[in-house]
Amino acid sequence: MCRWIAYRGETIPLEQYVTAPAHSLVVQSLKALESTASTNGDGFGMGWYGEHPEPGLYREVRPAWSDENLRYLCRHIHSHLYFAHVRASTGTPITRPNCHPFACGRWMFMHNGLIGNWSRLRRKVEALIPDELYGSRIGTTDSEAVFLAILGAGADKDPVGATERTLATLTDMLGPNKEPLRFTAALANGQDLYAFRYAANDNANTLYYRESGDSAVIVSEPLDTERAHWKPVPPGHMVIAQAGRPVELAPFLAAQRVAAE
Amino acid sequence: MCRWIAYRGETIPLEQYVTAPAHSLVVQSLKALESTASTNGDGFGMGWYGEHPEPGLYREVRPAWSDENLRYLCRHIHSHLYFAHVRASTGTPITRPNCHPFACGRWMFMHNGLIGNWSRLRRKVEALIPDELYGSRIGTTDSEAVFLAILGAGADKDPVGATERTLATLTDMLGPNKEPLRFTAALANGQDLYAFRYAANDNANTLYYRESGDSAVIVSEPLDTERAHWKPVPPGHMVIAQAGRPVELAPFLAAQRVAAE
Amino acid sequence: MCRWIAYRGETIPLEQYVTAPAHSLVVQSLKALESTASTNGDGFGMGWYGEHPEPGLYREVRPAWSDENLRYLCRHIHSHLYFAHVRASTGTPITRPNCHPFACGRWMFMHNGLIGNWSRLRRKVEALIPDELYGSRIGTTDSEAVFLAILGAGADKDPVGATERTLATLTDMLGPNKEPLRFTAALANGQDLYAFRYAANDNANTLYYRESGDSAVIVSEPLDTERAHWKPVPPGHMVIAQAGRPVELAPFLAAQRVAAE
Amino acid sequence: MCRWIAYRGETIPLEQYVTAPAHSLVVQSLKALESTASTNGDGFGMGWYGEHPEPGLYREVRPAWSDENLRYLCRHIHSHLYFAHVRASTGTPITRPNCHPFACGRWMFMHNGLIGNWSRLRRKVEALIPDELYGSRIGTTDSEAVFLAILGAGADKDPVGATERTLATLTDMLGPNKEPLRFTAALANGQDLYAFRYAANDNANTLYYRESGDSAVIVSEPLDTERAHWKPVPPGHMVIAQAGRPVELAPFLAAQRVAAE
Repeated sequence: MCRWIAYRGETIPLEQYVTAPAHSLVVQSLKALESTASTNGDGFGMGWYGEHPEPGLYREVRPAWSDENLRYLCRHIHSHLYFAHVRASTGTPITRPNCHPFACGRWMFMHNGLIGNWSRLRRKVEALIPDELYGSRIGTTDSEAVFLAILGAGADKDPVGATERTLATLTDMLGPNKEPLRFTAALANGQDLYAFRYAANDNANTLYYRESGDSAVIVSEPLDTERAHWKPVPPGHMVIAQAGRPVELAPFLAAQRVAAE
Repeated sequence: MCRWIAYRGETIPLEQYVTAPAHSLVVQSLKALESTASTNGDGFGMGWYGEHPEPGLYREVRPAWSDENLRYLCRHIHSHLYFAHVRASTGTPITRPNCHPFACGRWMFMHNGLIGNWSRLRRKVEALIPDELYGSRIGTTDSEAVFLAILGAGADKDPVGATERTLATLTDMLGPNKEPLRFTAALANGQDLYAFRYAANDNANTLYYRESGDSAVIVSEPLDTERAHWKPVPPGHMVIAQAGRPVELAPFLAAQRVAAE
Repeated sequence: MCRWIAYRGETIPLEQYVTAPAHSLVVQSLKALESTASTNGDGFGMGWYGEHPEPGLYREVRPAWSDENLRYLCRHIHSHLYFAHVRASTGTPITRPNCHPFACGRWMFMHNGLIGNWSRLRRKVEALIPDELYGSRIGTTDSEAVFLAILGAGADKDPVGATERTLATLTDMLGPNKEPLRFTAALANGQDLYAFRYAANDNANTLYYRESGDSAVIVSEPLDTERAHWKPVPPGHMVIAQAGRPVELAPFLAAQRVAAE
Repeated sequence: MCRWIAYRGETIPLEQYVTAPAHSLVVQSLKALESTASTNGDGFGMGWYGEHPEPGLYREVRPAWSDENLRYLCRHIHSHLYFAHVRASTGTPITRPNCHPFACGRWMFMHNGLIGNWSRLRRKVEALIPDELYGSRIGTTDSEAVFLAILGAGADKDPVGATERTLATLTDMLGPNKEPLRFTAALANGQDLYAFRYAANDNANTLYYRESGDSAVIVSEPLDTERAHWKPVPPGHMVIAQAGRPVELAPFLAAQRVAAE
C-alpha cells in the first residue's frame, strides 16, 4: 500500500507538500499511519507540469527519506499541478519504470492499491492496452497497465468516463472468487486533476482532500494534525479540480460499485 | 550490442574469465573491440550454478567496470558452469530485471542481438510465452521474452529443438520488410551448456570458443591476444558442452537459415 | 541504530541466519523490535571469509528487504565466518563505502552505535588512523574511522587490547559535555570473531549470542521467539569465538568503563 | 578525466547545452573527443541557481547517457547560471557525494583534473579545510577537498585570490617528484562564474568558451562542429563572467605558474 499526494492550484515549490509538512509525504515514506504497510521504501517518484505540455518526472528506486536529490528538486521546482508518490511494492520489481507516477503524452497517473490476482489477470489487463500505446508500457506494474488502458478507453475526450469504463471492465474480471481490487488513484492532463477512491471486494484505501477556491491538495493521509481541514473522500467517489471551477466531489462508478458489492 | 562469456568445466572462481584476463569481460565493458557499441555500460549480470539446482544471479544497473561488489564476488564464488554479460541496451530500460542472464527454474539464458522491430513484434513474441511461464516475465526485454518462449517450446526435453523451433517462428515473424534478427545466445540447465550464433536479414554477432576436453569457454570476443586458441563459431552454428562428452560444434537451424537468406 | 549478525562455526550458507529465520536480519531491516529506529533501510552489507585470507564483501545502498541479489547470494555463498548488517544512518550519506561491514587486509568490522558528537570529533578520530592505513578510508563514517584506528592500534598482534585502547581514547575524547558513545561491534580476522557491547554516557545497544561448542551466532536482537536460546551480552562485555575453543564471555574495558560512568 | 560545461547568461532550460547539442555533454559521457578517458560513465551531476541563494543539485552514480531523470530535469529546469559534469573517476569511489558539482552555502564548484599523488597529499589538503567547513566534506574526492580549501581561503571576499592562493599552496605541495596537478575548474556564487585552466608538471586539460555580451558558455570541449565560435582558454588563464560586465579572459596564477614550469 503506497502513499501519495496530488496538487492543483497556484504555482508553488513542490516542497510545500512533499517535504515541508510535519507529516509530509517523505515522513510517510518512513512511517505512514493509515496504511497497512507502515514503510513505503520501495522507490518513489514525482511528476509535475511546467511550461511544456508533457510533465517532468523524477523517479528513483531508493527510499524517499534519504534521497538528497529529492530535497533539492522539491525546493527548486515549481508547479501548478504535481504528483508525488512513495511506493510499497505489492510484488513487481523495484525499478524506476515501476515507480509512480507514470507519464504518457500530456497525461500523468499514479495509483495506490492493487488489481485482483495480478498473476491471473495480467495478460487480460495488458490486452486492454491498444497497440499504439503498448510501446509506452516500459514497466511491469498493474498500475501502469491500468493507466494505459484508461488512455486507450478515451481519456483524451472523456477522462472520467474512460476511467469508469476501465474500472468497470476490471471489476468484471475479478470473477466469482471475489479477488480484491483497490483503486485510489490520480489522473491529470496538465490542466485538470482527477482523484478516485474505489474498491471492489475490499475496503477502499483512504483518501483526503483540502480545497480552497479552485485549488486542491489530495492525499492518502493528512499532512498535519489539523484534521478538520482534511475532508475524507468517501469510497466510490472522486474529486475533480479544474482551473477556474470550484473543486467538486462526485460519485465514481456508482452503478458498477453497487453491483460489485 | 552486448558482450558475454559462458563457461563449463572444472569448478573455478568466476574471476578466471570475468575479471582477470587482459581483455576480460570487465575490460570489454569499457572498450569492446568487435562490437558496434564499444561501451557496454548499461548494466551487467552474472549467473552461476553451485549446489542448488537453480542458479544464483547478481545483476546491477551500474557499469561493470566500477562495481566493487563484482570484483569481490568473482573472487569468492566458484562454479562449474557460469555466465557473465555486460549490456549495451537496444532501447529497453536499464533495470535489474532487464539485465542478463535470466533465470527460470533450473534454466539460465543470456543474449547478444535483437529481435526484429521489437515495438512491432513485442506482443507476438510475448504471446509465445505459455501462461504458466508468464509470471516469470519480470522485465521487458526482447531477450527475456525469447528465453521464456524457448522454455515454453519444450527446452526441458529438447533444448536444441526448442530453441530451433522458437527461432524459426521468430524468423517467420520478420515479414517481407527484412527486419534484422540477431541471436548470439547461451542456454544452460546446470549440467549442459548450449551457445548459438544465428542471424536473419543481418550479419550474425561474433562468437568464439576455446575447448579442452569436456570444458569450454565461449565468448563474444577473445579474452586475450592468443587468437590461435580461440575458434570462431560460424554463423548458423552452435556449440554444445556437456559433462563427460567432447565439446561439439554443429549446425543450428540449417534449413530455416537457408530459407531466410 | 543498525542491526547486525555475526557467525563463526561450521561452514553454512549465509541464508541460514540472514534471510531464513522468522525474525531474520532482512525482516529486521523492515521491522526491528529492540531498536530506536524500527526501519533499517539505509543500505546494507555482508562480508564473509572463504578460501582467500581476505573477506568478500557485498554492499548496496538499497534496502535489504527488496534486494533480489541478496537472496541469491545468501543461498549460494557458504562461509565459516561471516557478518551481515542493515543500516539506519546517523547522518553520514547512504553510499556503498559507508555501508558495513568494512574490510582492510584480512580484517573485517561492523558497528551499531555512534561516536559522540561526530562533527566535533571527526578530525580527532581520523587523526588516530596511521598514514599507512589512511588510504583505506574510502568512506566517511565514524564506524570506518574507528575500525582503522583499531587496526592502527595493533589489532594484528592483540585485537582485544587494540580495541580497548582505541575505545578508551575515544571515551576520553567525549569531554565534560557527556556526549554519548555507543559501540556494539564485531571484529574478525578470518579465524577469530570478537563482538563488543560497550557505551559511555548512554545505554549500550543490545547484543545477544547463541553458542554451541566453538560456534557462535551473535546478534543485535534474537532471530526467533525461542528467547531461552539467546543469552544477552551484558554492557561492558565481549564475546570471543575462536576455532577449537569454547565461546567466551568476558569483561570489556572494565576499568575505563567504570571511570566513564 | 571528466567533461563539464558551465553557463551564465539569460535564463534558459538546462537542456540547451546539456542534452540538446550534437556533441552535448551527455554525448560526451559516452564518447568524448579531447579526453584521455573517452568514456565518462562514473556518475554525473548538475547544479543550478534559481530563486534560492543556494543552488540545487542532481547527482547520480549511473552514467548520464541512460538517465531518464536527467532528460526530464534538463527540459524542465531553467537557470541563469548552471553547471553540468560527467565523471571519469581517478580512483575515488563512485558515490553521489563524490560526483560534481559540489555545493556549500551559496557556492558551487566542479573540477576536471587531479591533485598530484592524492594518497600522499590527501591529509595535507584536507588540513587546509577550516574546522567550520569540515562538516561539509561529505565525500572523499580531491576535488571536494580543494573546493572547501578555496572557500576556507576567503572565496566570499575574493574568489580569484582565494583560488590562486590555494592552487599556489597545492603546487608547492607537489614536491621535487614533479607530481602532476591539473586544475580545470569552475566556481560560482549565484551571480558570478569563474572558470580556470591551470596545471603544474603536466599539460592543462582543455577548456573552451563562447561569449555573447555578458553571457558565456564554458566547456571542456566544443558542443558542436562550429569550432570558430569556441575560443580556447590558454593554460594559466581564467574566464570571468559577471552580470552586466563583458566576459573577461585573464591570466591565472601567472607568477606561480612560471615558477612551477
